[in-house]
Amino acid sequence: MASAERLDPWGHVLIDYRKLFTVFGVKPMKDLLEKLRELGPVHRLYRRGIVFAHRDFDKILEALRKGEKVAIVTGFMPSGPFHFGHKMVADQIIYLQSLGARAFIVIADAEAYAVRGLPRNKIIEYTKIYVANLIALGVDPDKTTFYMQTSYEEPYYRLIQMASAKVTMAEMEAIYGDLEPGKIMAALTQVADILHPQLDEFGGYKYVIVPVGPDQDPHIRLTRDIAERLNSEVGTIKPAATYHRLMRGIDGSGKMSSSRPESYISLNDPIDIAVKKLRNAFTGGRATAEEQRRLGGEPEKCSIYELYLYHLADDELLSRTFLDCRAGRLLCGEDKLVAVKLLREFLEEHQKRFKEIYDTVEDYIRLPSF
Amino acid sequence: MASAERLDPWGHVLIDYRKLFTVFGVKPMKDLLEKLRELGPVHRLYRRGIVFAHRDFDKILEALRKGEKVAIVTGFMPSGPFHFGHKMVADQIIYLQSLGARAFIVIADAEAYAVRGLPRNKIIEYTKIYVANLIALGVDPDKTTFYMQTSYEEPYYRLIQMASAKVTMAEMEAIYGDLEPGKIMAALTQVADILHPQLDEFGGYKYVIVPVGPDQDPHIRLTRDIAERLNSEVGTIKPAATYHRLMRGIDGSGKMSSSRPESYISLNDPIDIAVKKLRNAFTGGRATAEEQRRLGGEPEKCSIYELYLYHLADDELLSRTFLDCRAGRLLCGEDKLVAVKLLREFLEEHQKRFKEIYDTVEDYIRLPSF
Repeated sequence: MASAERLDPWGHVLIDYRKLFTVFGVKPMKDLLEKLRELGPVHRLYRRGIVFAHRDFDKILEALRKGEKVAIVTGFMPSGPFHFGHKMVADQIIYLQSLGARAFIVIADAEAYAVRGLPRNKIIEYTKIYVANLIALGVDPDKTTFYMQTSYEEPYYRLIQMASAKVTMAEMEAIYGDLEPGKIMAALTQVADILHPQLDEFGGYKYVIVPVGPDQDPHIRLTRDIAERLNSEVGTIKPAATYHRLMRGIDGSGKMSSSRPESYISLNDPIDIAVKKLRNAFTGGRATAEEQRRLGGEPEKCSIYELYLYHLADDELLSRTFLDCRAGRLLCGEDKLVAVKLLREFLEEHQKRFKEIYDTVEDYIRLPSF
Repeated sequence: MASAERLDPWGHVLIDYRKLFTVFGVKPMKDLLEKLRELGPVHRLYRRGIVFAHRDFDKILEALRKGEKVAIVTGFMPSGPFHFGHKMVADQIIYLQSLGARAFIVIADAEAYAVRGLPRNKIIEYTKIYVANLIALGVDPDKTTFYMQTSYEEPYYRLIQMASAKVTMAEMEAIYGDLEPGKIMAALTQVADILHPQLDEFGGYKYVIVPVGPDQDPHIRLTRDIAERLNSEVGTIKPAATYHRLMRGIDGSGKMSSSRPESYISLNDPIDIAVKKLRNAFTGGRATAEEQRRLGGEPEKCSIYELYLYHLADDELLSRTFLDCRAGRLLCGEDKLVAVKLLREFLEEHQKRFKEIYDTVEDYIRLPSF
């Protein structure tokens, strides 16, 4: 790492993501920040380089500027607790809604069943939790369609069926490697998730933006190809995408993921548990206080700093923490006190809203009978 | 062929179908004729050995006898004219409805699109023609659910998605050989077609009977396996099936099929065209009248006789034609006069009913917007 990069307070060197640019042709988000500013204050996730790349996002911004209809499509797999990694996506939805977009939020129940093997009753329970969390965070239900993949409106399924005829096995294997029928269905269903807002029946949103982690780019490429192949029949055009870094797990290894309980803090964890998790979180601290004062900490490796960066800190706190940590002026123990306070405040407020919404969640999504 | 077999006026030696019994374990229909008789007059297709085999049909008959709810599920691919081969299936529906069953008739539009590559507007046009023909023939719309695969009620799609998780690629390849995504979707969709009447949402019909040609047995086997695997989750049990001979094409080569116009007479052909086709149809006649008088004809090779057997002749005419032809007392020219008369009467009556129903066909099936 060059030292210039290491002094970037956003701390993001896209080591793992370079192939996206060089091989798959995504564009850097930083080139669009000026355009984003024209629409109003830019959300921290974009300013801080967490949403770091895109395909055709410039067209989406242009459409928003002109007041055209724009859809943001994103999915959540209801296969575990709702954690801070999910909140990052929710924040993008909320931001794009504030700029005028309508959200189509798919609960990927078909995928949770086929790919993760979750029982249906668990899936339905998680669905309620996800929808309630999203609304509690600020997703505007009046500007959102929540739906489940297996219980949606009719032409959606026609798109899945039609998409299946527009791609070969060889193409799918090139994208996904080994396939099973459940995986094929899941992939084709995601294609319909992304394309369906373009149909008249769902509002005719020709500008569709999909925020994804880089690991989801195969779905985006498949969908963009199929959109073109279906164009003459149903009028679909290529969707746009933005790419965000994936939040690091609080155990310091790999990404925050529902499938590794030690990696996340859930927005629905009892607050004492959440605080305890945070106190035990992996940091960028040195072996001893003396060493840390002498060498400085490493915020770019720190999961507490990661929480600040994505969620908890305003720009002033973020900058100060970064600089004080690097200079050895801030020790992990002191910093965790600040983080605990911010986390506690956030969770108390959020969980109160969550509870209210959870009790009436079926006002927002139609739940299936099984 | 043993001469005893050759003298059977039904004329059906199951040369091509033996593997169904020996390898795949279907049972002969003739063993159930006595049970069928207990329910009333047995339909000619069953008496004449056209519906010649089954899986678990004895359970269906027992359920009908006890007045339990029974569903007959069958599909039509809207990819060409409705012909006498389709009528044979319609007749089975009508018969089982008369014994108390409810029909679920799927218009396999997803399959027509993905596997046959038909444009959607053609598919919708054929759908109207199929539904109107079925009702004109006597399918009781009050005891029938007509639906299209891409625009149906919700839990149907959940079954497709769930089925996809219950089968491996290796299993599907063993059944179907080379696969493409569209074929996989079509196969999984057929599974949902067959199983969905068992769900509470569709009436909870636990006894499901599927009349198929022997070439469809792979679908039946796949569906029976998946039904068992989904049993603990959605309560599905193995569907029953009956197997019918496929009608020979009137050109004497292969089966009657929409994809070979020279092979069929459509129920919607202008009557003069239909009559002309019948006059040119392949028969079991000899090279000269003299030879035929001397050797006798071969009704078992004759497509006119096939029309009698499946559709146009009562038992008395059928027997007489068979014996007179074999004895050389009946020449093809004379016989065709009889056939033309019967065909003309049938088509005149049918086409009148068809026209009335076609004009209001949307009362019976909800047509999709694309």
